[in-house]
Amino acid sequence: MDQLGKVAIIGLGLIGSSIAQGMRDVLPSVHLSGYDSDPTVRARATQLGLAQVAESPSAAVTGADLIILCVPVGAMAIAAESIAGGLKPTAIVSDVGSSKASVAADLERILPDARIVPAHPVAGTEDSGPDAGFAALFHGRWCILTPGANADGEAVLTMRRFWEALGARVEVMEPKHHDLVLAVTSHIPHLIAFTIVGTASDLEQVTQTEVIKYSAGGFRDFTRIAASSPVMWRDIFLANREAVLDTLQRFSEDLSLLQRAIRLGDGEVLFDLFSRTSAIRRGIVQQGQDTSKPDFGRSNI
Amino acid sequence: MDQLGKVAIIGLGLIGSSIAQGMRDVLPSVHLSGYDSDPTVRARATQLGLAQVAESPSAAVTGADLIILCVPVGAMAIAAESIAGGLKPTAIVSDVGSSKASVAADLERILPDARIVPAHPVAGTEDSGPDAGFAALFHGRWCILTPGANADGEAVLTMRRFWEALGARVEVMEPKHHDLVLAVTSHIPHLIAFTIVGTASDLEQVTQTEVIKYSAGGFRDFTRIAASSPVMWRDIFLANREAVLDTLQRFSEDLSLLQRAIRLGDGEVLFDLFSRTSAIRRGIVQQGQDTSKPDFGRSNI
Repeated sequence: MDQLGKVAIIGLGLIGSSIAQGMRDVLPSVHLSGYDSDPTVRARATQLGLAQVAESPSAAVTGADLIILCVPVGAMAIAAESIAGGLKPTAIVSDVGSSKASVAADLERILPDARIVPAHPVAGTEDSGPDAGFAALFHGRWCILTPGANADGEAVLTMRRFWEALGARVEVMEPKHHDLVLAVTSHIPHLIAFTIVGTASDLEQVTQTEVIKYSAGGFRDFTRIAASSPVMWRDIFLANREAVLDTLQRFSEDLSLLQRAIRLGDGEVLFDLFSRTSAIRRGIVQQGQDTSKPDFGRSNI
Repeated sequence: MDQLGKVAIIGLGLIGSSIAQGMRDVLPSVHLSGYDSDPTVRARATQLGLAQVAESPSAAVTGADLIILCVPVGAMAIAAESIAGGLKPTAIVSDVGSSKASVAADLERILPDARIVPAHPVAGTEDSGPDAGFAALFHGRWCILTPGANADGEAVLTMRRFWEALGARVEVMEPKHHDLVLAVTSHIPHLIAFTIVGTASDLEQVTQTEVIKYSAGGFRDFTRIAASSPVMWRDIFLANREAVLDTLQRFSEDLSLLQRAIRLGDGEVLFDLFSRTSAIRRGIVQQGQDTSKPDFGRSNI
């Protein structure tokens, strides 16, 4: 496994900041540099002491053994180009993008000589920016590595160890399969949440005030993920178009079936589905991917 | 306002149990009786000391000043029939059903002489049964009263005071309007959650194990409400068919628009919607209807 003397984080938002804070705890001897294209974020990251913040991407990556691109999926190519000149020949380049096939292709095209190991830590909150990060974000969450067919085995092992050090569990997957799995477990849920929150805002007969007041009936659960970064999510849907549209088609068919059952007053169809769905919840709780407390353990306000 | 000497709760699940526990705290002098059609629930309610549990609905309501029906919407008519013989002439009959137009009509038809004040506390968790109840469930939540045009003003005031005593905020609404508002803020979110969890279970290319492992990407938020009582939700969709189908139609149109934008690679449409939706989240948090903590304040496991 490679020794990491210096790590560079490009993009100091929620994920970049969380990696930096996690490293401070578990890899304190590694030199950590950082860069963000937004000068306000750079200033804030310096104040927070997240990393040695450089004034250019190439300055940040100089001499780095590992570079992690923590930018929206649609900005990966630009970020890769911005570091291409400054890379050490043996450097590992990774990322944290939520879709992987297009990102992996971008990185391999733009950085043909780097040791590329795309990664996706399946973790986050609805908040954005360097202040939103925290070291425990990855604890017990899965990080999926999607190395290409010719990836360097040593580099893959280094990335596995790196994410395990941050508290994550690591899985290796084909990029295409990753994109299909995440379309179901993340992208479509977000798309649906954004949609229903939008629908609720636009109704003529129900005011926004009413939607807010009576949101504890279920709606408020959707508003959380619909408050996530617009740029990040726009990019994900554009990058993972095929898998998102496929899964959406399935969802729409299933919804039509229930719609029909409601129209016909067919309670059996509804009851059958509603009885099946609690098993998945139990699995998620049993496998430590959510709290067992009712209502997410939310304190009543 | 009426003095409450005795209150009877018919149905001792999550809501009935929470009312009983709340009353023990704030209305300790009121005599509380209870009934549930399930003998196991009756036994458990007795063990928990929730109320004086009767062996028949008419025994429970004998001499009661207020009877609250806490049964699934589809069982309201049967519950009303079961108490019709035992009611005191001045008794107030209320309920906690999540749809109101059909319930109000049932109660008024079956109990023409009672003082009827339908109610809906917009609160709950995904858990069911007497053990799931807790006194703080209604704290800071809204309870919607939907009295008919000829309702007794005194009885409405009593119900307002009753729910305020349990910690709720009270609003009065037309039953029809209630059903429209709740279709948006509760019924459609549940229908969508049930659907996506079902869709995810049925995919051929993604295993249930994968869905569970990577659920922290957003999916797990939906599984919570999709673990709610199947009978309760079947009844709600059948009872509030019209408003649910109307709102669902709007949602489907909005989803098609985003689907088209993804297909065409139109990032602007996506970005515009995703930028609008965080305002509603802010409103919900500001008005105390959800926690301000990221990720619902969930502790990372």
